[in-house]
Amino acid sequence: MGIFQRLAGRPLKSMCIWSLWSRHSSALAAVGRVTSDRALIVTSSQLTQHRCVHRGGLGASPSNPGAAPPRLPFSRVTQDDLAFFRTLLPGRTITDPDLLKSSNVDWLKTVEGNSEVLLRPKTTEEVSQILRYCNERHLAVCPQGGNTGLVGGSVPVFDEIILSTSLMNQVMTFDNISGILTCQAGCVLENLSLYLEERDFIMPLDLGAKGSCHIGGNVSTNAGGLRLLRYGSLRGTVLGLEVVLADGRVLNCLATLRKDNTGYDLKQLFIGSEGTLGVITAVSILCPRKPKAVNVAFLGCSSFQQLLETFQCCRGMLGEILSAFEFLDASCMNLLEKHLKLTNPITECPFYIVIETAGSSSAHDEEKLHNFLEEVMTSSLVTDGTVATEATKIKALWSLRERVTEALTHEGYTYKYDISLPVEKIYDLVEDMRGHLGDMAKNVVGYGHVGDGNLHLNITSPSKDPALLAAIEPYVYEWTARWKGSISAEHGLGLKKRNYIYYSKPSEAVALMGSIKAMLDPKGILNPYKTLPDNIH
Amino acid sequence: MGIFQRLAGRPLKSMCIWSLWSRHSSALAAVGRVTSDRALIVTSSQLTQHRCVHRGGLGASPSNPGAAPPRLPFSRVTQDDLAFFRTLLPGRTITDPDLLKSSNVDWLKTVEGNSEVLLRPKTTEEVSQILRYCNERHLAVCPQGGNTGLVGGSVPVFDEIILSTSLMNQVMTFDNISGILTCQAGCVLENLSLYLEERDFIMPLDLGAKGSCHIGGNVSTNAGGLRLLRYGSLRGTVLGLEVVLADGRVLNCLATLRKDNTGYDLKQLFIGSEGTLGVITAVSILCPRKPKAVNVAFLGCSSFQQLLETFQCCRGMLGEILSAFEFLDASCMNLLEKHLKLTNPITECPFYIVIETAGSSSAHDEEKLHNFLEEVMTSSLVTDGTVATEATKIKALWSLRERVTEALTHEGYTYKYDISLPVEKIYDLVEDMRGHLGDMAKNVVGYGHVGDGNLHLNITSPSKDPALLAAIEPYVYEWTARWKGSISAEHGLGLKKRNYIYYSKPSEAVALMGSIKAMLDPKGILNPYKTLPDNIH
Repeated sequence: MGIFQRLAGRPLKSMCIWSLWSRHSSALAAVGRVTSDRALIVTSSQLTQHRCVHRGGLGASPSNPGAAPPRLPFSRVTQDDLAFFRTLLPGRTITDPDLLKSSNVDWLKTVEGNSEVLLRPKTTEEVSQILRYCNERHLAVCPQGGNTGLVGGSVPVFDEIILSTSLMNQVMTFDNISGILTCQAGCVLENLSLYLEERDFIMPLDLGAKGSCHIGGNVSTNAGGLRLLRYGSLRGTVLGLEVVLADGRVLNCLATLRKDNTGYDLKQLFIGSEGTLGVITAVSILCPRKPKAVNVAFLGCSSFQQLLETFQCCRGMLGEILSAFEFLDASCMNLLEKHLKLTNPITECPFYIVIETAGSSSAHDEEKLHNFLEEVMTSSLVTDGTVATEATKIKALWSLRERVTEALTHEGYTYKYDISLPVEKIYDLVEDMRGHLGDMAKNVVGYGHVGDGNLHLNITSPSKDPALLAAIEPYVYEWTARWKGSISAEHGLGLKKRNYIYYSKPSEAVALMGSIKAMLDPKGILNPYKTLPDNIH
Repeated sequence: MGIFQRLAGRPLKSMCIWSLWSRHSSALAAVGRVTSDRALIVTSSQLTQHRCVHRGGLGASPSNPGAAPPRLPFSRVTQDDLAFFRTLLPGRTITDPDLLKSSNVDWLKTVEGNSEVLLRPKTTEEVSQILRYCNERHLAVCPQGGNTGLVGGSVPVFDEIILSTSLMNQVMTFDNISGILTCQAGCVLENLSLYLEERDFIMPLDLGAKGSCHIGGNVSTNAGGLRLLRYGSLRGTVLGLEVVLADGRVLNCLATLRKDNTGYDLKQLFIGSEGTLGVITAVSILCPRKPKAVNVAFLGCSSFQQLLETFQCCRGMLGEILSAFEFLDASCMNLLEKHLKLTNPITECPFYIVIETAGSSSAHDEEKLHNFLEEVMTSSLVTDGTVATEATKIKALWSLRERVTEALTHEGYTYKYDISLPVEKIYDLVEDMRGHLGDMAKNVVGYGHVGDGNLHLNITSPSKDPALLAAIEPYVYEWTARWKGSISAEHGLGLKKRNYIYYSKPSEAVALMGSIKAMLDPKGILNPYKTLPDNIH
């Protein structure tokens, strides 16, 4: 039950109480971490047993462009190589297959590599020495942060050496006048958030995987997340990067300035290039002040058209205090209730909205929010809703949005699509897809970032189903291309989407990307088989 | 006289009235425009008389790294070339020396080239054909927008063909749901602002030269300006670009999506690269809603320390509605009064601040501003001030900040520096420079964007003075490098600053920039002698 009946003229302090506080991030906390670095003796015969266990198939083909391509002719790791790494990284050169397992498989458990070495450097100099060595030896490397990616970009495809940033987790400097944080790439996003909150600042990005994902991985994938609507993309908030290039050269662009127009902005090359052009070792980032007042409203709409009108009204009336406008559909709510035992705090609706405001005056913000809610209630754009101002209740409401990804993993196999479209089009794709697939899919659900025109379309089936996949793709990509959308709004291309790049980028652009790759990584050792299509190698 | 004595408890609607409404932008309106395209018959002897009239000298040397380097071995324009251009651009191939004059000299009149051809394409296809031809013929090209740059980047150094975007001035699309504008590169910023204001939106950038500068030039130079504090840099707000590469290929990255992670973000290469990597022909940009309420306060402080404390207080109390925090010192005010007959609206102070708020509720914003002003007045951080809410009065207050550049041009020769530093350091540089130069300089003035840590340091003398220059440089760059600042925060490097790049970028980074230039423009025809240092060619 919502609070709308009791709303008019009263401060927005009340909220229905229910207990559901736990997070996607907590569930993820143990994923992708190696807690012991016991090294096994590996025989050379073990090291030459390589196989591709990518679950998408044993080679990309016209019928499955997301499958792994054939292995490229990189060198294989030898005992001499291991001896080198063990000297460089004593106790931090992992070869125990049990310890390697979680780093070889992605969080969704849809892609699995077969790496036999995981390296855990602590310093930029160590990363530099690793890459210089691998480049000379023609050994392929898969950089890995928190391993929370959704497109198979963060795990090896074959036997690439895994280069983990997990021990590069130190905050280097924080300037509490400018709000500029400089830290190593392996800092976990949530730890940085906690560090900053103690200092009255926040990170400019937030996402469901915050408990595991690394800031270096966030930057490498140009992560979007929940605060992009307010604070903009990492292309604006990242002020500097330190990057190790494929040949071991260290590129120090770790500026801490809001403005710097001295030559080309090289750091942009490494933002969003998914570790294919260099390994990010440190990041400086501009952090906003912690808002004095935060409110979250959870609202229900009876149609997507009403949701869009609510969004337009919201932008006008909440203006500068609007920090997020997210949605999920009724199918998502069903999965949250079924698998995670979360409770819907309002009456059942076809669509749910999470609106967050963040501002410097609680009285002003509550008045703006009150006026907005009165408007959307009076005009019947919204059918029910509830509001939270207290931190734990805010987190509880947010978890209804943030844990949808987690709920989906309990449904069997999930085909995930991360699409940008003109905002008025985003739910049409979900409905068209439902009609198109009919009974083939168990669920076709939509959720995402309305404010950014970013739909997460997820289609589930009890297990992997090639016939279903063939019905989804390329239909979904053609649909997206028809509306000039992006086939990957924020997840990147990784392994799974690399060959679909032409649906969103012209061939001249892809060719130029290939030239950039060849310039920066001529031997192609950095995160091979990812981001760029097979025909460019 | 300010209004502080009458402030407490009253709405902030009053403002001292004075008349000073005219703008830097108006004064600039005629600069860099060719109003007729009468073609002269040019003899081949005329076409081979090339000379470098760059006023900085006839060749960069250790003593004057800002001077022009020797001419590179590009082809010279022939009658055949002119015939080709006249066929392609009938009536838009300008060779009349009188008409060319204003395009050969920069706005500051400190750098002058000797181009004998100005081309005025209207379409991307024409730009493509021009560049394909020039690349094949090895003819150098200087792309030019509104020619309002301050570092000699927008005029030819020798006889480069001037490629003007002035006739590429069409708005292509505007989506009033998303606020995404797509337009040709030659649209004048102020015209775009007027177009958007009619539709209840604004451009995310604003600068003094708005009446002349082109959006393509703004993007090519990654212009900062007055709204960066609020809306962030063009790296975040530019969503797509169309670019013609040196060989005439058209790169269509003209997306209109807030999020798109499909491959490398190529458009970033062309933002801020000053026309050296490609010619921007169209831009799509995310525009904010027009704020419902705008207030401007003009305040005086008795020390820079008090100004900084006022800034900190302002960020805390105005928070999300703060849209600009600019400053000028008393020397700037003297020049505004002396040369432009502007009137100081408050009592004389060593430092003046322009604060702008922009929000969705005038009542809330005025209350926040009132509380802030009461706080800084009570604590004596601010000694006097005045506030405007009405549009013409807001413009009048803004002109005190925006017209400083123009006032300086009346002082003789101006040495201009555009420095990023940690904000608490920015005025130390002005004071140190005053002490360092003593009587050598006529004026040493400081103004700029406090919110961005960006100082405009300007040093004047009655005429060009090599001894003064030698005293300023490299002192100013060494000072900046010592504090890890940027020697060009927003102006770019152009011709004048190209060889100083190493003060802000490590040699590995500059070498990589050279590789990018070589990849995209192997013959080096695009805006030669600019941005990159001489030793990289």
